[in-house]
Amino acid sequence: MMEPDNMSITDPEMAKNSLKEFAASFQNTIEDFLPEAEGMEDQVLSAMRYALLGGGKRLRPFLIMKSASLFSIEMNYAARVALAVECVHTYSLIHDDLPAMDNDDMRRGQPSVHKKYDEATAILAGDALLTLAFEILSSPKTHPDAEVRCELIAKLAKAIGAQGMVGGQMIDLKAENQSLIESEITRMQHMKTGALIVFSCEAGAILAKVTGERRDSLIGYAENIGLAFQIVDDLLDVEGSSEDIGKTAGKDEQAGKATLVSLMGTKKAKESAKNLFEQAISGLKSFDEKADILRSLAAFVLNRAH
Amino acid sequence: MMEPDNMSITDPEMAKNSLKEFAASFQNTIEDFLPEAEGMEDQVLSAMRYALLGGGKRLRPFLIMKSASLFSIEMNYAARVALAVECVHTYSLIHDDLPAMDNDDMRRGQPSVHKKYDEATAILAGDALLTLAFEILSSPKTHPDAEVRCELIAKLAKAIGAQGMVGGQMIDLKAENQSLIESEITRMQHMKTGALIVFSCEAGAILAKVTGERRDSLIGYAENIGLAFQIVDDLLDVEGSSEDIGKTAGKDEQAGKATLVSLMGTKKAKESAKNLFEQAISGLKSFDEKADILRSLAAFVLNRAH
Repeated sequence: MMEPDNMSITDPEMAKNSLKEFAASFQNTIEDFLPEAEGMEDQVLSAMRYALLGGGKRLRPFLIMKSASLFSIEMNYAARVALAVECVHTYSLIHDDLPAMDNDDMRRGQPSVHKKYDEATAILAGDALLTLAFEILSSPKTHPDAEVRCELIAKLAKAIGAQGMVGGQMIDLKAENQSLIESEITRMQHMKTGALIVFSCEAGAILAKVTGERRDSLIGYAENIGLAFQIVDDLLDVEGSSEDIGKTAGKDEQAGKATLVSLMGTKKAKESAKNLFEQAISGLKSFDEKADILRSLAAFVLNRAH
Repeated sequence: MMEPDNMSITDPEMAKNSLKEFAASFQNTIEDFLPEAEGMEDQVLSAMRYALLGGGKRLRPFLIMKSASLFSIEMNYAARVALAVECVHTYSLIHDDLPAMDNDDMRRGQPSVHKKYDEATAILAGDALLTLAFEILSSPKTHPDAEVRCELIAKLAKAIGAQGMVGGQMIDLKAENQSLIESEITRMQHMKTGALIVFSCEAGAILAKVTGERRDSLIGYAENIGLAFQIVDDLLDVEGSSEDIGKTAGKDEQAGKATLVSLMGTKKAKESAKNLFEQAISGLKSFDEKADILRSLAAFVLNRAH
């Protein structure tokens, strides 16, 4: 158990409960947005719904809502960005699970999309979810100012394209049985998962047209918790049981993949996660107690590694 | 050979030559935009380049440039829309060629992306091209007015998502050994290929902020040539040799797929294509001789079925 020093203002339980509550309500957001469809193309819509409603922590939507709540903006706008980002995250999981990629038959205790339906449907459902994310962001319902919508689209596209999430996944796939060094792994992790977490924390500032220090603070916070999240994930992969982490433990080692934990060792990795946590907290100092939920979330991320 | 009646103003050779010339110059547009990359993610960028530079008729970019030239707009803007749409078309071909989809090892006489690289790279390169299309459209370089950029993004996303191209592909895959009726096939074709052709013809009007009759004329033209193009494709599949059409002839029949041609018969299909051609031409009557290249293109589409 890694106890953060400044536990009083960073009780991980606060974020844990809030995240759980949020995840439950987010199911309704999805249900409302993507109702059951009819027609011969219903199989792709049905697969999209199945994947989107399949649970998950909803960490990215949560980050969007909580960062956005630091500013005076219409929270309905943030909810649409949250939906778009969850579409993107879900598409990436569907495609990652495919036999040609990570070949995972299960996702959160349920058959993955290509098992529940078939591979063709999984490819198409992923493609359609990615497309839907941009359709959501382009609508005036997401923000009345088209400049803001275009900034959201440009930033999201950069975060998830060949120089972001997709590029990171490519490096990760090629890294099996190769020896990446620490800086290469850090860069790969930033591309593969960090960039979308950064976008999630920056989105509120984009919606509020806030630039400068406050926007930069959120970006810094996101970079720190993104990397901490990944290190903790790797630690759980080494130390946790499959049951704890909801997927096969020891997978990275089996695949011959170097991780930050395998390179630094468990002890140094834990120290590093704690340092990242502290940087995340200190980066938020320009925000008042409204940001406590983000501080608590950082502690929750760290606390998973017990 | 199907001779259009009003051949004088609709010489198919004019479009044929112009399209050929344009396709050659479009290679440079792609080269300039997507230079060779470095870094470990280079494999996905290299696959994107390979697929984008792999030739093809460049029909959609051509339609965008020629429709846009009917209006007084900066042609650089249209070129960026053309690039975005070709990214989308290329992504759809990469994913369609995958073993789980149409399982085509060859594309335009070259190994398809999953054969040249591997399946994982093909999935990721498709995903990254789709993402890149939206990144291109969101940039102020595509149009100074963000409202225009958002309209392009919204219309494109609708044309290619679950209720457009992807939905059409889903229906097409499910239609093997099912019996679709004529109206269902027409709807499927409109979703699968028609909607992106309509977007290509409408894009110039969007860039020029032109609405009303002139925009509707272009949409009508696109709907007619889109369906004519598909009927001619089906006719070539029945009548042409594999060499003529650059892919395996008789594929639809082998797959047990009903086409408009198999339902209507060759004679009625040819009549239908000719009717669609005439409607396409008559729809353009509000445009002067600047639209002759589009008229010629309609004749070229029809003329492929000799």
